[in-house]
Amino acid sequence: MSEDSVGLAAVTLLGVLEQVYFSLQVIYARRKFKVPPPSTAGPPAFERIFRAQVNCSEYFPIFIIVLWISGVFFSEALSCLCGLLYIYARVRYFQGYSESAEGRLDPLYSSARVLWLLIWFCGLGVLLSFCRVYLKLDLIKGLCAALGLV
Amino acid sequence: MSEDSVGLAAVTLLGVLEQVYFSLQVIYARRKFKVPPPSTAGPPAFERIFRAQVNCSEYFPIFIIVLWISGVFFSEALSCLCGLLYIYARVRYFQGYSESAEGRLDPLYSSARVLWLLIWFCGLGVLLSFCRVYLKLDLIKGLCAALGLV
Amino acid sequence: MSEDSVGLAAVTLLGVLEQVYFSLQVIYARRKFKVPPPSTAGPPAFERIFRAQVNCSEYFPIFIIVLWISGVFFSEALSCLCGLLYIYARVRYFQGYSESAEGRLDPLYSSARVLWLLIWFCGLGVLLSFCRVYLKLDLIKGLCAALGLV
Repeated sequence: MSEDSVGLAAVTLLGVLEQVYFSLQVIYARRKFKVPPPSTAGPPAFERIFRAQVNCSEYFPIFIIVLWISGVFFSEALSCLCGLLYIYARVRYFQGYSESAEGRLDPLYSSARVLWLLIWFCGLGVLLSFCRVYLKLDLIKGLCAALGLV
Repeated sequence: MSEDSVGLAAVTLLGVLEQVYFSLQVIYARRKFKVPPPSTAGPPAFERIFRAQVNCSEYFPIFIIVLWISGVFFSEALSCLCGLLYIYARVRYFQGYSESAEGRLDPLYSSARVLWLLIWFCGLGVLLSFCRVYLKLDLIKGLCAALGLV
Repeated sequence: MSEDSVGLAAVTLLGVLEQVYFSLQVIYARRKFKVPPPSTAGPPAFERIFRAQVNCSEYFPIFIIVLWISGVFFSEALSCLCGLLYIYARVRYFQGYSESAEGRLDPLYSSARVLWLLIWFCGLGVLLSFCRVYLKLDLIKGLCAALGLV
């Protein structure tokens, strides 16, 4: 375990640091716009930063889960690549949302596309493993044989 | 790892798809009830859908964590079964809450009962593993011997 | 897997129970302060309890992720110890925040310090594994040799 998934662990750690960064931005925004806890209502500029962080937090567990399932059951390299793209899209989302509600849309769609790709990888990985474990069927080998590749 | 927990991965993926479905419902509700981000306040019908999604998101990491600990340390088959029941209860919760605040209660209690069951499985699995690893004591074998079963 | 990380699983289970406890406190507070769902606005005493639970929920996935990465890639014993300290700091945070907004600060800083420590452990563990797997370099052995320890 600790040997083969170090790439996934590194991407996960980067994602954790990003979440910590977003949380700190909310703390700074609370001071700047004078919105003391427990209140979460304030000027739109504050609420955009606050909602950006909440949205990223909501998707964070989903992201980490599909990153690891895709990495363990499908391909670690492809998952790590998607993970980095997702983390980058989320930084742009946070910055865009901080400036305007429209500014969040483009990077939000980017992050959603990467997440869907990871979900497809998960589905494929789980399907291949399922056939191998329960049906004793190696779909990739079968496909290669059918195509005359081996 | 990728061989023995494919069932858990499949249930997890189903749970992820459910969360994505809930998120999409909130996006549609924002359009229908004209509640543009970052605002989260609107008519009660919008707020119920919004809160249903937030509540499911809050419990999602807890659900995935107990699903896997129970599956790895106790029984994969029982955990997967509980996982499917939980996912089903959450769909009913979301639909019920969308209609009325009272409508959320029955499926909420169902989902809570399944979650408690998974927590009990986790506790049992961790206890058994703990005794095996640190006390070199196989409780199940001991119990069977005490009952004269072996 | 199920043999070597039973300590991490036990701490994780304790963290799950803590989250369940916080959720129940919000349900009791809803009844006490008469704030029926889906509303989340109410007297400050209710909002503090509500926000305390939301904040703990937000950090919970991050906590579990760094607990396991640190435990698998660095040291299970140190991670479990940090995990227990974090769980204790979060109880004090919840109680402190329930009483006053200022009361949350001290335990919040404690929990943040423990989280940073776990993040450092993760970084160190990932770095050591990365060097071992991809660079065939055992940094700890190299360091000991350089210091004349072996």
